[in-house]
Amino acid sequence: MDGKGSHTLAELGEFGFIGRIRERFPAPEGVTGIGDDCAVIPQRDGRDTLVSTDMLIEGTHFLRDDIPPYRLGWKSAAVNVSDIAAMGGTPTATFLSVALPPGLEAGWTDEFLRGFADLSKRFGVALLGGDTTASPDRICINVAVLGECPAGTAHLRSAARAGDLVCVTGTLGDSAAGLKAILGGVERDAEIQALIERHYLPLPRVTEGLRLAAAPGVHAMMDISDGIGSDLRHILDASGVGAEVFVEAIPLSPALERVCARLGWDAAELAVCGGEDYELLFTADPEAEKALDIPHTVIGRILSGNGIRWSGNGRSFSGFDHFRR
Amino acid sequence: MDGKGSHTLAELGEFGFIGRIRERFPAPEGVTGIGDDCAVIPQRDGRDTLVSTDMLIEGTHFLRDDIPPYRLGWKSAAVNVSDIAAMGGTPTATFLSVALPPGLEAGWTDEFLRGFADLSKRFGVALLGGDTTASPDRICINVAVLGECPAGTAHLRSAARAGDLVCVTGTLGDSAAGLKAILGGVERDAEIQALIERHYLPLPRVTEGLRLAAAPGVHAMMDISDGIGSDLRHILDASGVGAEVFVEAIPLSPALERVCARLGWDAAELAVCGGEDYELLFTADPEAEKALDIPHTVIGRILSGNGIRWSGNGRSFSGFDHFRR
Repeated sequence: MDGKGSHTLAELGEFGFIGRIRERFPAPEGVTGIGDDCAVIPQRDGRDTLVSTDMLIEGTHFLRDDIPPYRLGWKSAAVNVSDIAAMGGTPTATFLSVALPPGLEAGWTDEFLRGFADLSKRFGVALLGGDTTASPDRICINVAVLGECPAGTAHLRSAARAGDLVCVTGTLGDSAAGLKAILGGVERDAEIQALIERHYLPLPRVTEGLRLAAAPGVHAMMDISDGIGSDLRHILDASGVGAEVFVEAIPLSPALERVCARLGWDAAELAVCGGEDYELLFTADPEAEKALDIPHTVIGRILSGNGIRWSGNGRSFSGFDHFRR
Repeated sequence: MDGKGSHTLAELGEFGFIGRIRERFPAPEGVTGIGDDCAVIPQRDGRDTLVSTDMLIEGTHFLRDDIPPYRLGWKSAAVNVSDIAAMGGTPTATFLSVALPPGLEAGWTDEFLRGFADLSKRFGVALLGGDTTASPDRICINVAVLGECPAGTAHLRSAARAGDLVCVTGTLGDSAAGLKAILGGVERDAEIQALIERHYLPLPRVTEGLRLAAAPGVHAMMDISDGIGSDLRHILDASGVGAEVFVEAIPLSPALERVCARLGWDAAELAVCGGEDYELLFTADPEAEKALDIPHTVIGRILSGNGIRWSGNGRSFSGFDHFRR
């Protein structure tokens, strides 16, 4: 990178761009800024404020004809609340910006808001503000979310230690399979529809995040938005460690396994490279992992060194970078 | 409005849509939610947290070929910091989401970030997070801003009282004239260029907002983003009062007066209907106004009743509504 404008964004990549922002905007002393699921801002009353924001653009993140507005509203709130869950925090408030094309029916926005409200109510989150404006053509959505946690308890990506086990909540790959079914126009029987709902209606792991954050020996944590192939790398880079992942151990839902067998899809690839599961990826020391009372699966371990060794089938999986799709 | 989807957004209007959101998401007890420049969230340590967010869409808010990226970065930060100033608060942190087309030169983003950083540094605001993603075509920007003020001191739109004077800081209309010059392709001599800079490089009135908030007898306050014709109406509606505005008293810069005389533009209309001055509009009781030590101009007074009476030239000015442009 030479900073002289000779690179397009496609060449620079999403993470290169974020790197440039980090160079230009160092976080103040005591504050965790850019580079984790949330910023962590210490308050004066024994709590830390958590803040995150996510943008969804029609044509990049969703297709208007494919996603019903209720589900888009739900998902817009869910992906942000998930960032608070990823720190082990409690979400408190959201701020919604929407740019809408003039011809869009008001019924669309009612359904969108109903979905946004239903997810918010489920997690006790208040919509406290936002911005509504016109877009020439595409729907643009941005949500900012606030949350909180006791001072010093936010679980950062940088906390993984060699010897930790790598764990995930839930199962992986359903959301990616649902997206693949949508994009491929696969006939929607009940099983396919269930995968599509996992893609449209993710449930952020707030309760699980809070319990993991309260458990001793749980170290790094993040949510799985881009796929563990990419997301685990963030933990490794931030922590200065490597990892071995046992591909056969990655938890798959029975529905995903059946659909993949039926349609000839690669379930492991969907689970590793597909994103938007919004499960939690975390590392814990082996003694602590044994004592955890929330459902989870051990999928690997943290090593000194760097990079990911995929054991079990010898393949390597590339990550996922929004600017290179 | 029947909520059955029979209205398009253009018919519903921006404020109708916001009304629907407010109905669906009542703010929790003690919290000021949707409908002011910022949300006001009480903390446990004698402070209130202020939050606002603004979205800028290429083709609605700016044209890529018209606004240099440095100025767009500056302005994106400025309009948000201005919302904190409008409450009488201190801005503390911003969160920047950008969706960028793949072919955009990295040099564009460097310049954009440089402008964002320069405005931020000027007001001591840290960029603590955000989201970077791809857009199929248009640049989309969203900024969320955090600020703070001592508990209970945020100046809301709802605080105007009959008998208050209506005041503004600075001069009005330069930004609108600058935009008119850009859109009309007016030849850019030094005077025109100065107006264009007022449009591109607004200076949020943070210091003025803090001093006004600390002065006794200053009641309602907001920033002027849509033009006083529209913005004052928000104060009146929120406070349940009316106003008389002395059109001849509205402060105009000498540059605006000269350019309008030269080009046959209506300076009063630009000052009243044009937005994006980012000056402060506030009301104060007459005794308090006399004691104010920051530069300002009295442009009217608050009346019981409702609506705006424009005195001085008999014209009426319609507001500005993003969905109806």
